[in-house]
Amino acid sequence: MPDSFLHSEIHDQPAVLARLLDQESANIQRLAAQLRAAAPRYVLLAARGSSDNAGIYGKYLFGTLVGLPVAQATPSLYTLYNQPPRVEGGLVIGISQSGQSPDICAVVEHGRASGAPTVAITNDPNSRLAQAADHVIPLHAGPERSIAATKTYTAQLMALALLAAHLADSQAHLQALAALPNQVAQALSVEARVTAVAERYRYMERCVVIGRGYNYATAYELALKLKELTYVLAEPYSSADFRHGPLALIEDGFPVLVIAPQSGVYGEVVDLLKRLGERGAERLVIGDGAEALAEARSPIALPASAPEWLTPLTCIIPGQLFALALTLAKGYEPDHPRGLRKVTETR
Amino acid sequence: MPDSFLHSEIHDQPAVLARLLDQESANIQRLAAQLRAAAPRYVLLAARGSSDNAGIYGKYLFGTLVGLPVAQATPSLYTLYNQPPRVEGGLVIGISQSGQSPDICAVVEHGRASGAPTVAITNDPNSRLAQAADHVIPLHAGPERSIAATKTYTAQLMALALLAAHLADSQAHLQALAALPNQVAQALSVEARVTAVAERYRYMERCVVIGRGYNYATAYELALKLKELTYVLAEPYSSADFRHGPLALIEDGFPVLVIAPQSGVYGEVVDLLKRLGERGAERLVIGDGAEALAEARSPIALPASAPEWLTPLTCIIPGQLFALALTLAKGYEPDHPRGLRKVTETR
Repeated sequence: MPDSFLHSEIHDQPAVLARLLDQESANIQRLAAQLRAAAPRYVLLAARGSSDNAGIYGKYLFGTLVGLPVAQATPSLYTLYNQPPRVEGGLVIGISQSGQSPDICAVVEHGRASGAPTVAITNDPNSRLAQAADHVIPLHAGPERSIAATKTYTAQLMALALLAAHLADSQAHLQALAALPNQVAQALSVEARVTAVAERYRYMERCVVIGRGYNYATAYELALKLKELTYVLAEPYSSADFRHGPLALIEDGFPVLVIAPQSGVYGEVVDLLKRLGERGAERLVIGDGAEALAEARSPIALPASAPEWLTPLTCIIPGQLFALALTLAKGYEPDHPRGLRKVTETR
Repeated sequence: MPDSFLHSEIHDQPAVLARLLDQESANIQRLAAQLRAAAPRYVLLAARGSSDNAGIYGKYLFGTLVGLPVAQATPSLYTLYNQPPRVEGGLVIGISQSGQSPDICAVVEHGRASGAPTVAITNDPNSRLAQAADHVIPLHAGPERSIAATKTYTAQLMALALLAAHLADSQAHLQALAALPNQVAQALSVEARVTAVAERYRYMERCVVIGRGYNYATAYELALKLKELTYVLAEPYSSADFRHGPLALIEDGFPVLVIAPQSGVYGEVVDLLKRLGERGAERLVIGDGAEALAEARSPIALPASAPEWLTPLTCIIPGQLFALALTLAKGYEPDHPRGLRKVTETR
């Protein structure tokens, strides 16, 4: 079988992340100094699809590193309702691979017209989104040919992490980022293991994907890859939200994929893993700790441990590889999911 | 079969809403005057489960009526990570039926300690959440005995709508609210129709629930009721987000439940309904417009039209009745879903 764009783009990620670090660090440092001077009270974030999942990571990053709450924008207020909320005191960030979705552009255009500082994170520095914003962080990911986003997703995470670390002016965080491309390369080494594991899920039709804290974003992104590529109805949850109702879903054999690296939320996630086990759930775990992996029917051990705030960049790698392997196991086409186009323009 | 608490609590809703209007309007009017004087720049909202779905409604309400962006809090930053973001300039609102979940209380306690105005919306005015906040809006819903929330959900929507209308000081909106209990009573008249429709879905195991704008909240809440009560893996989506990837899921016969009252987003939702039809989806539509209902295999027509901003209160009624009818059609117990307790305490 010829190599898919999806497969090669997954493997491009260490190089993409290294290039982004190399080419944008100075730009982002300058941008952060300007934004600090503006002293925003909160961040308003506009995105859809995988970019919106990157935005979930942004909520935790800006909360912990910069101490700013993050509001995810409601684009229909800008487009269909034409009643945008006031944005004085906010920092507006639009995230879009293509930079073309009209509703995301509308949020950034309104922010700029209101005098709020605006940032576009996009793979196309000539796009409408890039032109709408005061500042642009180009992703330097190269053309993404597979419809399912992989390298632009991790590049968006990296761009947000760089921006947060520079806003916090934290050398420790910046040093940790420099080590990340290598850790992502190590994570790719799980491919053979993940491909073997995926066979077992050939006939899975639905599942739940759980992460908490920083890896709430990873749960969303893995679930989206599974829906786009394998047509499995995969629903993402935080371990806390899952206890508030959806836990009732779990019966014998119900598949639950859990993102569980060692972290500040590890104990809570391990506790949920045990509870899921008591209810007979089939558990697949992506992690680096013995306690969580021991709970799994299908453990996927990460070879390297990143600092917790960067684990969304390493933990999504086995997830992407799992989604690809399951796509092939089910006999589907990885580069062209049914019914999708690369650029989705929503109002 | 004896009547379930769930059934009687669904039917209690017109009376609960009328009581809330009667007993809290003056309190909320005073509260709104104080909050206007504080001139918050944004709203920080903390909630889980059905209360978090009420919070989604709050995003649209506060955006359109009051012009304030809404950030949904990330409770783990307060509890597991112990790194709460700064909240200066924000208005903090905690929503919880029981008022007991420690993580939701932590967000409100941090807000109050930081000097931000804080509001608790809860059915228990003596709860920890109520004690943590400067201001309390009690729901007056009476004890909710069924584990799945119904009357406290619509009461939370009403409390948020009252607060937004008073913050906007809009007599037109307040008059519309006064008519709402009667419209909710009329919505209950679809029960026989919904019960007949539910038979068809006896063996449905998964579905997608779609709403946009104000009824994005309704999609989340209907999906949660289906998961809690019928163990159907029901995933909520905005019609825009659904186009960004999950559309690939749709194959012949895939069930999609669509909330489509006439509204500012109606055209966009009808367009998606047509696209879903081309892909062979089985469409159940809750709405009041001929164009949307004509697309459905299972149309559920609402008898009365509320103003758009109040349709989440009328559109969830057929949804609750459908979840109950499907629970019974599948032979499950409506008041005691497996694995759940009424009060879920998460950290």
